[in-house]
Amino acid sequence: MARQPYLQFHFSDETAGRSMSMDQIIDVIRQQIHTYNFPIGSRLPPVRILAHQLGISRNVVHRAYTELIAQGLLENHPRVGLFVAPPQERVSVKKIRDVPSPTLINSESWPTQSRDAKHSRLNISLSSVFVDPALLPKERLAACLRSASQQQHLRTLYDAQGFLPLRQKLAERLNHRGITADAEDIIITLGSQQAVDLVSRGITSQVVAMENPAYIRGKWLIELNRKKTIALPVDPFKGLNLDDWQQRIANTRPGLLYLTPNFHNPTGYSYTTNELQHILEWSHQYEFGILEDDWGSDILSFSDFRPSLRAQGGPGVLYINSFSIKLLPSLRVGYLVGNRDVTPTLVRIKSISSMGMPAVIEAALFEFLDRGYYDVHLKQLQGELDRRYQNCLNVLRQTMPAGTRWTTPGGGSQLWVEVPKRIDLNILQKKLEKRGVQIDLTYDAFLEPPHLNGFRIGYAYLEPDILQRGIEIVAEELHRLMI
Amino acid sequence: MARQPYLQFHFSDETAGRSMSMDQIIDVIRQQIHTYNFPIGSRLPPVRILAHQLGISRNVVHRAYTELIAQGLLENHPRVGLFVAPPQERVSVKKIRDVPSPTLINSESWPTQSRDAKHSRLNISLSSVFVDPALLPKERLAACLRSASQQQHLRTLYDAQGFLPLRQKLAERLNHRGITADAEDIIITLGSQQAVDLVSRGITSQVVAMENPAYIRGKWLIELNRKKTIALPVDPFKGLNLDDWQQRIANTRPGLLYLTPNFHNPTGYSYTTNELQHILEWSHQYEFGILEDDWGSDILSFSDFRPSLRAQGGPGVLYINSFSIKLLPSLRVGYLVGNRDVTPTLVRIKSISSMGMPAVIEAALFEFLDRGYYDVHLKQLQGELDRRYQNCLNVLRQTMPAGTRWTTPGGGSQLWVEVPKRIDLNILQKKLEKRGVQIDLTYDAFLEPPHLNGFRIGYAYLEPDILQRGIEIVAEELHRLMI
Repeated sequence: MARQPYLQFHFSDETAGRSMSMDQIIDVIRQQIHTYNFPIGSRLPPVRILAHQLGISRNVVHRAYTELIAQGLLENHPRVGLFVAPPQERVSVKKIRDVPSPTLINSESWPTQSRDAKHSRLNISLSSVFVDPALLPKERLAACLRSASQQQHLRTLYDAQGFLPLRQKLAERLNHRGITADAEDIIITLGSQQAVDLVSRGITSQVVAMENPAYIRGKWLIELNRKKTIALPVDPFKGLNLDDWQQRIANTRPGLLYLTPNFHNPTGYSYTTNELQHILEWSHQYEFGILEDDWGSDILSFSDFRPSLRAQGGPGVLYINSFSIKLLPSLRVGYLVGNRDVTPTLVRIKSISSMGMPAVIEAALFEFLDRGYYDVHLKQLQGELDRRYQNCLNVLRQTMPAGTRWTTPGGGSQLWVEVPKRIDLNILQKKLEKRGVQIDLTYDAFLEPPHLNGFRIGYAYLEPDILQRGIEIVAEELHRLMI
Repeated sequence: MARQPYLQFHFSDETAGRSMSMDQIIDVIRQQIHTYNFPIGSRLPPVRILAHQLGISRNVVHRAYTELIAQGLLENHPRVGLFVAPPQERVSVKKIRDVPSPTLINSESWPTQSRDAKHSRLNISLSSVFVDPALLPKERLAACLRSASQQQHLRTLYDAQGFLPLRQKLAERLNHRGITADAEDIIITLGSQQAVDLVSRGITSQVVAMENPAYIRGKWLIELNRKKTIALPVDPFKGLNLDDWQQRIANTRPGLLYLTPNFHNPTGYSYTTNELQHILEWSHQYEFGILEDDWGSDILSFSDFRPSLRAQGGPGVLYINSFSIKLLPSLRVGYLVGNRDVTPTLVRIKSISSMGMPAVIEAALFEFLDRGYYDVHLKQLQGELDRRYQNCLNVLRQTMPAGTRWTTPGGGSQLWVEVPKRIDLNILQKKLEKRGVQIDLTYDAFLEPPHLNGFRIGYAYLEPDILQRGIEIVAEELHRLMI
């Protein structure tokens, strides 16, 4: 059982800081005990604490206390402490009731916990966007962490924008991919999620346009930031309806388009070159900014020259990427590439809202890139995911009933299986659950009544034979429902 | 020089996912090249990439390309790639100009960079709130990081609320200090700054009351979250004017009081027991929530039983603390203690805005606490800071001119020196700068015209003899200015 907190008195006066005499101390304590009616049994500060605080000798405090005991105001309980004594006329102050909590916003439409922590592999989890943990280079990453935590690298302070050598390394890699940027343009973020947060907190516009269906955590974040969302429909089987997009943009005049042009989550769709060009042209015409989320473009063989809005539209396009899926989710490192106009403001928002990232994590990631581990890892990962992708396509072709179809993203970690509209996905999900197969329904990702009726398959997460078994079970249940 | 990105085509149709024939591929490419007028010299996807994406043999793609070359639509440049050929009638699409950046909020009143990164010890930096890096247990912390980064501990996923063993350990320590909490109530945050951010994003009220002068990063954060701030004046030499506070609260009805009852930054003031009790009583009467920032209470000898609002007001009081100052600023770990009503919503906000913390950092801190290193460190730190505090008081008493005064916090890392109103602090600062001594002016921390005229002395940051030299120089300049 903890002892009660001691009473805190106010000792300052016009000569605050100077040494107080015994009489002054006695006066202050007498006066405050009388004025504030502290309950009988309230604890006085120990001699050593009060002497330390006031910068005077313990002897002066001790003599003051002795005098107050002699005056009957205090009682000494040996080895326990000094307490307010019970005088006849004094009453206890009323017991403080538990105070109310502050009133918070309604958050029921958001998940209580990140699913991440509860992710289970007991069942066949078909819809994960994660990469199989067995394919992640934990041992090499741990080696870099150990190296970065050697004393000379365990820095006291940190750079709010992000560890400079890491920013320099990222700039070099981006330039190699045709994306113009230097270290001053880049901000290291807590995953790509913080990057989206910084931009949505930073823009003046109250209207953000995004894909429909949306990356669901992006949608929630825009909602959290109280922006109005405009839906830009994505049909991965027909491509973008550019007339419809243009009309929606012209009518609503969003200040920002938040887009995932490569391997869109959840559909796996990638924008065509023509679509990218239209969007860049419209940004002049309708004066919107662009936030490009390029989370997946390097989970693809030979991906160096994949088109991106930033590469074609210049530094005005804000670009984000992350190491979460490709390297290690629990590392929580992403980055935002801005430009001389916007980066300083976004750094200020980062600095004010969270100060910065753990410096040793940034230093470890720098080492991982600098030693060349990341490129070797990506190459191995790409090779393995290519095999899993081909296997996934083969199994789908062999098993899925006519009337179903699926996207062929060619990269990323997931594709979209579309089933006929008359199939109730909730029924399918329940039937699959009974057989140990889990699919995620993405109704929440739609900003308008859903125009798609399907689900994600994450071919990167499961070993090929487990994925095959999962798809076979889906196909069997679909066959039955489609009879 | 990077190669240009390849053209991205749209291949899907009603049987998307099934194998495409050579003729289907040719049709799609012909049609899209004609429709979209891609510039001459645009690069086609390499055979291997297109074959991989569509899940068909390279041979089919190769034959399709050969046919298109034969048709004069494409040109093969050996060892470079396949490109759109120049037909007479085609024109280049217009070159995309650099697109505009999104428009951001005005952020000029905030610092461009965290000062942290630029902190220099070349001069005598008198106003730092940091603890001398030489007193921080970097070596033991590095050992815990190395241990936590061993492969079995380098987890793939993470808990959005924070690593459970760390939350359990913190709950145990809080209970020992009389603060009721269990692991479910606690959220690990990116420093205490993210904790303040979560609460200010989560509350429905648009009005937040805070101390004046304020902890400046808290004030900026409340501003960033577009809340109206109400000033509650702190005069560290007179204590709180309770009538004035009550009137301000009654008139403005804030939804939250954000308070630092122990070792308030920048004044070093600690609330009296009577003041704490009034605030807790008002919270019922005026229905406000309380966010208690207890950053400094364990930077004090014998601090276990220091009064806190949470301990006396119950779980409705939201409580935050941090390891930044006391353990290592670059670790970036803080925590928020809520309750069953508010914690789930705050976890959702954390999860949506940043997903979570780097798991290995949380695991390393858990080890540091669990091995007992932290308590040993705190004890050593407290002993050294006690000595530095006494030294600081002694030097002030010996050197400062009559008419100056200073607070005696008895803990934390800083105290406030108040000089006569006729002294222009800007002039003092310039004179000190010439002599290599740096003081921070805190005009920005005031929400109303400043009622104090002074500056912080951080006695924890500098070695005693350097601090002494710094104070002596301040005293000399003050003497001159006061003649």
